[in-house]
Amino acid sequence: MPSRYLNFCCSVPWLLLLLQTLFLIRSFFGFPGVGDVYSPSNFYPEFQDVNHMVIFGFGFFLMVLRRYGFSSTGFNFLLIVLGVQCSVLVEDCLVVFLSFLSCSLARATVSMTAVVISTGAVLGKANPVQLIVMTLVELFVFYVSRCINRTFLQVPDHLSLMHVHLFGAYFGLGITSRFPEPPPGLDKHRSTPKSDLFSLLGTVFVWVFWPSFNSILADSKKEAVLNTYLALAVSAVAAFMLSALTSKNGKFRMAHIHSAVLAGGVTVSYTAHSIQHPWIAMILGLLGSVITVLGSHCIQRCFNPALKLQDTSGVHFTFGLPAVLGAVAAVVLCVVEKGIDTQWNNLPSLGYLVFVDVGAFCQTIITALTTGLITGLILNIKLLKAVHVSKYFDDQFYWEVSFKMISD
Amino acid sequence: MPSRYLNFCCSVPWLLLLLQTLFLIRSFFGFPGVGDVYSPSNFYPEFQDVNHMVIFGFGFFLMVLRRYGFSSTGFNFLLIVLGVQCSVLVEDCLVVFLSFLSCSLARATVSMTAVVISTGAVLGKANPVQLIVMTLVELFVFYVSRCINRTFLQVPDHLSLMHVHLFGAYFGLGITSRFPEPPPGLDKHRSTPKSDLFSLLGTVFVWVFWPSFNSILADSKKEAVLNTYLALAVSAVAAFMLSALTSKNGKFRMAHIHSAVLAGGVTVSYTAHSIQHPWIAMILGLLGSVITVLGSHCIQRCFNPALKLQDTSGVHFTFGLPAVLGAVAAVVLCVVEKGIDTQWNNLPSLGYLVFVDVGAFCQTIITALTTGLITGLILNIKLLKAVHVSKYFDDQFYWEVSFKMISD
Amino acid sequence: MPSRYLNFCCSVPWLLLLLQTLFLIRSFFGFPGVGDVYSPSNFYPEFQDVNHMVIFGFGFFLMVLRRYGFSSTGFNFLLIVLGVQCSVLVEDCLVVFLSFLSCSLARATVSMTAVVISTGAVLGKANPVQLIVMTLVELFVFYVSRCINRTFLQVPDHLSLMHVHLFGAYFGLGITSRFPEPPPGLDKHRSTPKSDLFSLLGTVFVWVFWPSFNSILADSKKEAVLNTYLALAVSAVAAFMLSALTSKNGKFRMAHIHSAVLAGGVTVSYTAHSIQHPWIAMILGLLGSVITVLGSHCIQRCFNPALKLQDTSGVHFTFGLPAVLGAVAAVVLCVVEKGIDTQWNNLPSLGYLVFVDVGAFCQTIITALTTGLITGLILNIKLLKAVHVSKYFDDQFYWEVSFKMISD
Repeated sequence: MPSRYLNFCCSVPWLLLLLQTLFLIRSFFGFPGVGDVYSPSNFYPEFQDVNHMVIFGFGFFLMVLRRYGFSSTGFNFLLIVLGVQCSVLVEDCLVVFLSFLSCSLARATVSMTAVVISTGAVLGKANPVQLIVMTLVELFVFYVSRCINRTFLQVPDHLSLMHVHLFGAYFGLGITSRFPEPPPGLDKHRSTPKSDLFSLLGTVFVWVFWPSFNSILADSKKEAVLNTYLALAVSAVAAFMLSALTSKNGKFRMAHIHSAVLAGGVTVSYTAHSIQHPWIAMILGLLGSVITVLGSHCIQRCFNPALKLQDTSGVHFTFGLPAVLGAVAAVVLCVVEKGIDTQWNNLPSLGYLVFVDVGAFCQTIITALTTGLITGLILNIKLLKAVHVSKYFDDQFYWEVSFKMISD
Repeated sequence: MPSRYLNFCCSVPWLLLLLQTLFLIRSFFGFPGVGDVYSPSNFYPEFQDVNHMVIFGFGFFLMVLRRYGFSSTGFNFLLIVLGVQCSVLVEDCLVVFLSFLSCSLARATVSMTAVVISTGAVLGKANPVQLIVMTLVELFVFYVSRCINRTFLQVPDHLSLMHVHLFGAYFGLGITSRFPEPPPGLDKHRSTPKSDLFSLLGTVFVWVFWPSFNSILADSKKEAVLNTYLALAVSAVAAFMLSALTSKNGKFRMAHIHSAVLAGGVTVSYTAHSIQHPWIAMILGLLGSVITVLGSHCIQRCFNPALKLQDTSGVHFTFGLPAVLGAVAAVVLCVVEKGIDTQWNNLPSLGYLVFVDVGAFCQTIITALTTGLITGLILNIKLLKAVHVSKYFDDQFYWEVSFKMISD
Repeated sequence: MPSRYLNFCCSVPWLLLLLQTLFLIRSFFGFPGVGDVYSPSNFYPEFQDVNHMVIFGFGFFLMVLRRYGFSSTGFNFLLIVLGVQCSVLVEDCLVVFLSFLSCSLARATVSMTAVVISTGAVLGKANPVQLIVMTLVELFVFYVSRCINRTFLQVPDHLSLMHVHLFGAYFGLGITSRFPEPPPGLDKHRSTPKSDLFSLLGTVFVWVFWPSFNSILADSKKEAVLNTYLALAVSAVAAFMLSALTSKNGKFRMAHIHSAVLAGGVTVSYTAHSIQHPWIAMILGLLGSVITVLGSHCIQRCFNPALKLQDTSGVHFTFGLPAVLGAVAAVVLCVVEKGIDTQWNNLPSLGYLVFVDVGAFCQTIITALTTGLITGLILNIKLLKAVHVSKYFDDQFYWEVSFKMISD
């Protein structure tokens, strides 16, 4: 396919040039003030943690495929630096038309997590052009979804941002369902011990920095850090426990550890700042881990084959299911708290609360899935030069690699 | 050995479930207040450093064996998240019965260093059940040892915590002496350049974050950071110097670098906050490095074979000897300072001081060694399913690895 | 060459011992007060970032050669701990004779970047003795150069320190030009996917921590962080864009990514604290990336072969050219700002400003190049036992490696 191939190689740099020029022009005609962009004041150490976590941690976290190490890390890096610029500059434009969300470097980096998660779903199948288009569309749709939550469903700003995991996972699933499946003989989407080791390295980074992620926008940082840490600790213990229980021979499986140790952080992301009793955070961490490991079995065996989905790095059970659980838990906790406060006298008001809160996360999921499907359809029209399935999961298609293979 | 093997695979997850349930119940019936757990206020960046150092740094620091990368990092991670929960929750219980040490996330993470160091001594020989039992016993005994130091020997709280290195190393030695030796032909406890590289990566992390470790609980943070940095810098220089001097052909040996660059941090851990003249910290760093490199020769050639010890990652000379040196130096410095203050007029009081201070660290060593020996004996009874020596040092025994080997 | 070889192995540890003894004696006879050394107060988290970046980030950034992983990281580590001690202790002496620059741990670590960059130019060709001598000479000359800038050309202290990139790159070029070329058949200076991956890991670290590097000594930290982040983001996007444009088939080349993503940070290092309009920082990041990628083509094809230079890790285009661009940009921005302030009425004063500012960076380049050349000549006299070209780029010459090769 030389002609299509040439098309691809021509289009990436020009697309990047176009976008970067637009960002430059935008920033020339008015950049949000330093005060705004740098908004939670004194936030530098936490921002550094989150930045490190998103670029380094997730970059290596995604390095699960045998022959796709450069692309996993490199494209993750590229998408984040593009997306952060886009968020900081373009959100500012949208604010005029749409709503009153403030934008900042920290918020932009947190938003990018949605894109990173979606990337995990199409890892190895989407080419850079598709990934860039996906990034832009996803950031825009996520912004709109946050505006809806904020305006019609009274979700506070920093909570609306915690829908990243939910949005990222289901948007990614929507997209990946429109990509053709790899042929059954292709074994390049397997991991090797070496790629697993690098992925573990990234996972540990993400794990360590997750308390910063959950606390960076929260009001009560202490509680957010403590609850997140405890939830992560419990879900790490549960990950080992469940991995040994569910695998043959009682051995641990690295793929389980990768996904399930993080489940606790995702699950408490909505509630970390408001949980008063640490045991609730610990229970949530435990449930998050359980749903991830069981989900990985059910989904990979039944759900994905039935729907002909291929979710390369398992974002559905790593981020999607724990986020749903966390959202449900947030509703329950909120209702119980309000109920106790009012001694369960004001049931209609509680009912309204449930309706609004459930509405918020259902809206996020539905928006993510539908726009993801549509984006997936658009990304697979001929114009965007989809990668041929035989070229899936391979660095050599995008990088000048002086082989001997990276996976050897 | 299928039956014993099945026993093993059944017991790990249930043990984890039991422990986690106990922790949950404990936290349900009363969790220490957020203020207590989060006690040195404004401590988040330093805590993050120590957390990162213990989980990531030590995890990869221990990755010295050819075929044991997953287990080194994974089990280190598991033990820490278990141990931190155990410390935060159970210490709080013990406080009622035993003493008045406050507990906190930072203290819990620092305490876990003892367990991490002991793990290094039995690396590759203990199975997860044994490691978990060891963790619980060690945390309890270390807590008791701290209480004794605190109550009877007037050691201040944060200093009693700095006995972690001493305690961890000798507890580990005690345990490892009760494990059967690997057969002489087994070469799996050798390192490869690749495992050395990952281990170096971890070592550098530990090195960089060590000033945070020594300063997190100190009153005078500035001095603690500065003295620790200088001691570490000198011991790193001395590590290269001594490695070239002691090896054949004047080449550097990576194993020396791994252990000796950290010696300075261990040596000044007792005194970093109180040393007024940086040259003292530098001398201590130098001596720490010397004792580590010379110790590694003497111990590995004479002491260990004579006692049939096998200290897989050399914790005796990496942490044990420098910690002894540091403890002695702390006594000397304290006596000299007091002596100069009183113009050497009050010799009986000085003698008492020496007696108490020497008593404190001797008590730690003796407690660690004896309880380590006893724990080692308990761990090797049939019930706990010791690993057969032919299965030592091998990931395949614990992990589903899709080989091609990790070490290739 | 056994005799020469024995000479080498004897001299390294004794040289280290000599230096360390001198540092100890110096610190015994008067160490700068803790307050001075720890000078930008409350600086610990930023210092930790810079320390981490220099030791870990650059250590792995330099790991581009197939068989030189231990030496890249290990020697980088050794030189930094030596150099920081040297800076803190010896600068303090020089202050008496030469000038009034204050010294501190943070400044010392920033200064060491010059040495790290120069090391990149002679990577794999210089033995440890040569590297240590180079470190000492370079630190001294850089200090003198800063004094000249400070005294005669009114460059503020923290800006004079930002000449590290410029100084390091041209000093390194000067030195490397005096080393004999490796024979054409030698392929050990090529990278493998594995070494590229480790190098990418280091690059990401350096990238993430660069805002801390540029802001640690700046007065207006917020602006410094924000502008550096934006410049880095734009240069990362441009790196991917230009890499695809300039390589065959439109594939990305990892070597381009390594160098060009960092160009933005280097380019804005002089101006990050003073740029008021973020679009200027973004433009500078873009230009930095362009000059790096184009420079790498021109320099590697025309300039280096013509001058018989061999710049192993490409410091000329990675750090040298973007730093020149940044220095020129700083002059232009300063003149434009002053010009607008005075409504272009005071042209002679502007001319003087240009003269002084251009003088400052020309002085740095010329001093660096000439002293680099002289140092290169000195390093290659027989006394210092230059490495034979056939032993270039090989860990086995310096480390006890139990091969199987590191690069396999």
